[in-house]
Amino acid sequence: MKFATILPFISAVSASCLHGTSLMPRAADGTVDINSFNYTGLGGPLNWYGLDKSANSACASGKHQSPINIETDNISYASASSVHFHVPKVDSAKFENLGSGLEVVLTNGTLLAGNTSYTLAQFHFHTPSEHRINEEHYPMEVHFVFESAASQIAVVGFVFELSQFGYSTPLFDSVFAHLDDIATPGTYTMTDALDFSGLTQHLNSHGIYQYTGSLTTPPCSENVAWFLSTEPIVVNVQSYNAVKHVLKFNARYTQNSLGQANLLEVAASNFN
Amino acid sequence: MKFATILPFISAVSASCLHGTSLMPRAADGTVDINSFNYTGLGGPLNWYGLDKSANSACASGKHQSPINIETDNISYASASSVHFHVPKVDSAKFENLGSGLEVVLTNGTLLAGNTSYTLAQFHFHTPSEHRINEEHYPMEVHFVFESAASQIAVVGFVFELSQFGYSTPLFDSVFAHLDDIATPGTYTMTDALDFSGLTQHLNSHGIYQYTGSLTTPPCSENVAWFLSTEPIVVNVQSYNAVKHVLKFNARYTQNSLGQANLLEVAASNFN
Repeated sequence: MKFATILPFISAVSASCLHGTSLMPRAADGTVDINSFNYTGLGGPLNWYGLDKSANSACASGKHQSPINIETDNISYASASSVHFHVPKVDSAKFENLGSGLEVVLTNGTLLAGNTSYTLAQFHFHTPSEHRINEEHYPMEVHFVFESAASQIAVVGFVFELSQFGYSTPLFDSVFAHLDDIATPGTYTMTDALDFSGLTQHLNSHGIYQYTGSLTTPPCSENVAWFLSTEPIVVNVQSYNAVKHVLKFNARYTQNSLGQANLLEVAASNFN
Repeated sequence: MKFATILPFISAVSASCLHGTSLMPRAADGTVDINSFNYTGLGGPLNWYGLDKSANSACASGKHQSPINIETDNISYASASSVHFHVPKVDSAKFENLGSGLEVVLTNGTLLAGNTSYTLAQFHFHTPSEHRINEEHYPMEVHFVFESAASQIAVVGFVFELSQFGYSTPLFDSVFAHLDDIATPGTYTMTDALDFSGLTQHLNSHGIYQYTGSLTTPPCSENVAWFLSTEPIVVNVQSYNAVKHVLKFNARYTQNSLGQANLLEVAASNFN
């Protein structure tokens, strides 16, 4: 199932954590705004601030930036009973290749965390993982991006581990089923039926790391509520290789510990 | 086969590209000098210059830094006949866990490239890959580090792709055979017999990307001759997961294009 390209050709777009929220709305005509950032050279994370100093100052000066290395002895844990992740089954969803981002458009999901209720905007993939856990990285990571009525952002994330036995989390088999159809940036396809019950059960039956960080893409806005499953989900080699071949590389470097100086400010001060 | 720890405990050591060369000799008593750099926060690549400004200035100011994104349409290719990689079979070799580095000590290899003859110092692993090829990253990369009589450094590198069918390049099965024995930094084990003929054949039967860059670890010295096989070698999921669990993350971020401004200088200038 392959659809004609209706998006403009985009060489440097990433599925921003803001994408599809009120802060970065989708164009009403189905086209996608082109971002100027990417993961290479002057378009990459070390220069996101330089690309737009008024919009992206948090990327270079924020002290609660994501992704981080999660130290399991020091991080907070959310109690499973305080995080309600609910995404109803759908027959199909739009799956877009945004250049350096792969994103599923799905808005009929909710997150209730603490006393705040959020609505799903989309979910998207990074390779390699953005977060590290006790320094270890993972081959892939998925981010479910939610927004509250007051425009607060929350992200529920899962890292992927490679499966030795060819098994993938079924939900993502369905997401990636027609990946071959969207090898070209600017194209989209439709997923198979998506059933989130297994993923929800996975989230509920393991711990959840919780911290307040930022978007991992420009404008790197802070006060983002992060919820990361403590247990990786699995992906098989075939899907991993296929996704990586399309995504190439779209992980921001690990940021300094929460509350510590932004690493770009440290780097700049070294030249003084 | 597990040996008692004779190395001091080291939390932040990486197998530098210089390690074991005349520029960073091994201690005669078998211990390993402790490096202060790593891949996290203030010890990480954005602050390697700040760790030692006199030694590491190339990390922040060099304009021919490695790793790079290899654009296959723009990179130079070495003719297979001009690169002679020769590492004789050995019954076993020392395999060290240096904290954030895994290194095989082997000095009886040679590289003849152009008119320069180099001697092998060691080979070591990075995960994820340091180089990207047309933006795509790879799960792992191995660097064979050579030094000439005039202390010139050359590195022969291979990226790894995950195998769907459980197959690994046999040489690395033998290297990783006793990885479980060196899960703790500061320990070492002995590899099984190492036969480099398959790897040599792989190098000789595919193209070789060639460029002049730098060490990917402090002091980031330039004028390093890089030779990278155009074709990935394979690793199975079991070995990859095991290596990743020990190495965690030890890849420097991709540097700016050769000859362009160092990204840290660009980042610093954004604050002016």
